[in-house]
Amino acid sequence: MGSNPRVIVIGGGFAGLGVVRGLRHAPVDLLLLDRANHHLFQPLLYQVATAGLAAPSIAAPLRHILRRQANVTVYLGEVRSIDTGRRRVDTGEGSFAYDYLVVATGTRHAYFGHEDWARYAPGLKSLEDAFGIRARILNAFEQAEMADDEAQRAAWLSFVVVGGGPTGVELAGTLAEIARHTLKQEFRRIDPVRSRVRLIEAGPRVLPAFPESLSGAAQRQLARLGVEVSIGRAITAVDNQGVRIGDDFIAARTVLWAAGVAASPLGRLLGAEVDRAGRVQVGPDLSVPAHPEIFVAGDLASVTSAAGPVPGIAPAAKQMGAHVARSVQARLAGRASSAFRYRHYGLLTTVGRMAAVADLGWLRLGGLVAWWIWLLTHIYFLIGFRNRLVVLIDWAAAYFTYERGARIIVRTDQLE
Amino acid sequence: MGSNPRVIVIGGGFAGLGVVRGLRHAPVDLLLLDRANHHLFQPLLYQVATAGLAAPSIAAPLRHILRRQANVTVYLGEVRSIDTGRRRVDTGEGSFAYDYLVVATGTRHAYFGHEDWARYAPGLKSLEDAFGIRARILNAFEQAEMADDEAQRAAWLSFVVVGGGPTGVELAGTLAEIARHTLKQEFRRIDPVRSRVRLIEAGPRVLPAFPESLSGAAQRQLARLGVEVSIGRAITAVDNQGVRIGDDFIAARTVLWAAGVAASPLGRLLGAEVDRAGRVQVGPDLSVPAHPEIFVAGDLASVTSAAGPVPGIAPAAKQMGAHVARSVQARLAGRASSAFRYRHYGLLTTVGRMAAVADLGWLRLGGLVAWWIWLLTHIYFLIGFRNRLVVLIDWAAAYFTYERGARIIVRTDQLE
Repeated sequence: MGSNPRVIVIGGGFAGLGVVRGLRHAPVDLLLLDRANHHLFQPLLYQVATAGLAAPSIAAPLRHILRRQANVTVYLGEVRSIDTGRRRVDTGEGSFAYDYLVVATGTRHAYFGHEDWARYAPGLKSLEDAFGIRARILNAFEQAEMADDEAQRAAWLSFVVVGGGPTGVELAGTLAEIARHTLKQEFRRIDPVRSRVRLIEAGPRVLPAFPESLSGAAQRQLARLGVEVSIGRAITAVDNQGVRIGDDFIAARTVLWAAGVAASPLGRLLGAEVDRAGRVQVGPDLSVPAHPEIFVAGDLASVTSAAGPVPGIAPAAKQMGAHVARSVQARLAGRASSAFRYRHYGLLTTVGRMAAVADLGWLRLGGLVAWWIWLLTHIYFLIGFRNRLVVLIDWAAAYFTYERGARIIVRTDQLE
Repeated sequence: MGSNPRVIVIGGGFAGLGVVRGLRHAPVDLLLLDRANHHLFQPLLYQVATAGLAAPSIAAPLRHILRRQANVTVYLGEVRSIDTGRRRVDTGEGSFAYDYLVVATGTRHAYFGHEDWARYAPGLKSLEDAFGIRARILNAFEQAEMADDEAQRAAWLSFVVVGGGPTGVELAGTLAEIARHTLKQEFRRIDPVRSRVRLIEAGPRVLPAFPESLSGAAQRQLARLGVEVSIGRAITAVDNQGVRIGDDFIAARTVLWAAGVAASPLGRLLGAEVDRAGRVQVGPDLSVPAHPEIFVAGDLASVTSAAGPVPGIAPAAKQMGAHVARSVQARLAGRASSAFRYRHYGLLTTVGRMAAVADLGWLRLGGLVAWWIWLLTHIYFLIGFRNRLVVLIDWAAAYFTYERGARIIVRTDQLE
């Protein structure tokens, strides 16, 4: 470490990585702290949870991504406290001083006061979550095959996804595909096609961030894939036998949670106002009002642009990260930092095989064309992220380039 | 299930799968029991442990492999007891009657009375083991980077592999490669090249199953890769700070165990003699002497052929599996079963990048040519196993063939 200003970035997601990369030529000493050793291509995490992709295909070691950027040090660690007065961050294993701090730790899934549901209805945010969900889904079919009792068999073949946002829609659509196609013919005593996949949304429609017409399209596509969509009724209880909705009980041994997010608890340590989900209300340049040296970027930031609240999606996080990098450089140069302007390119969600919805503002699509847009967009960004479309040459590459395709720490102590 | 004779096969490794496939046209009802949902390409497991391959690249769901074989049912479960009198197998969740039983549950690593070493020095047999070892290795470099104390840093960069058999040699060689090449330039405070990798073998040479000249070649190749090989001295203590060899203490935060195997405990339930490692002494046709309806195949069987003891390697397991299938068919037809004849094609072990030893009997090679033989052999068998060289098209394939590349249950409850 030299005597350059020290910038600490907490979180190596799209926002945090955006900050670090944006400062690659700046005269600063960067410290990137993350509790995982890898950056995750979050938009495809549901594919790992549903066994479509191996974890290394969507995760890359942060220090590998940043190996050529000499002004950054990467540390593995979970931040426990932030002392905004003395400008220090503490990980339990070390204490680090900063001149500028960027908090980009995103969100977790939330149970809104029903934290005990977590063990019955896991949510999806990390690779560990994805492995856990994958094991539950695959194991459910195994248990169904072995069940001697018809009611138990049906309960094992009954899947409930709670929450009709993008993650819920993706999980439900893919579950239906697994049951109807992937596992077809692999069992002797059960017919996976007879599985029931239910998507439960408490609000009036799925994908509420999309225009109503596309919510309708998504619901029709889900129905065509075999998903039973329930709208306007909220879960009132969850246990290992199923879910309750008011007086109705749905027997289901596999319940997945995609119903809500809560911001990372670090947001509350910054002395700024937070919204109901715990997101930090930042100023126009994404700094914290009382602390111009502290910035918040990505899903943890509550920002409103001209067109309304900035959505919690990867492109927004990347843009915020890049903007914070510019703001830090402006401060260093003694210039005023500018206001963040969110550029909205659109919303995309896949529903399942050849089914998706796309809202590009000037164009609204549901169906095959939307799915192709989704596919090409994700291939494009995945390639940009790590040349991983060519997930591929892993094996050969390990020998011929010394690179190792699977360098991912699965934090096994967190697995249940 | 019809009224055909019931054949239960315990274990879906090379031997068990060989039995099941060998009986694909036989008039039997097969039940394959395994505690994992996948068949594992064991010879490349060390690659998963050393982050070279993603788990799905070397594991395939048993029921997917067998989906077109109508006379087999696959159940997930761990056999708890075998009642050889009443001819029943019990998994805790179910009890199953058999007419013929094949036990092919292989071996685990063994600590020879020092079971408490297991937590400090994990061994490598399953995917869970591989994930745990991978996390330890990667985490060691992370901890070294963050250590403030020079002694601690050195201890985190010190790796000990106990046992100079094939697995120990592969792990040590690959660790040296990771330190010297893969991680080069990724750290700011440590130089991974300064890591020390030690291979400790209590016997007089590494790879004792090979001719002495090849043991020497392997030791020279290891030395060239940067591995310090210690011969003829046994570990006397292991804890989380390192290992003790007599009066010497080697500080090492990462110790891996590849020093011995113990047969699956199921072998002792069959009422047959077992050798010191717990392997079952089977008759010439691989059946248990007192129980002609029970067979043992693969690493769990202690068999001596004309050329000496049959080695515990994949080709031997496959041959035994095929032979048991023939023996069962002979019994069914009222014919006498023939004696197993092991056909030895040779021994191959990779030492590291472009380094290997090959003993083909008529040809003994150490070095680049041996490595090419090793590479092509493993590519060939991996392709035969699952078209996985083309690990590759995973992503595209998931969409276009409905197949899902990562359908592997990681038994997370076993992870520590």
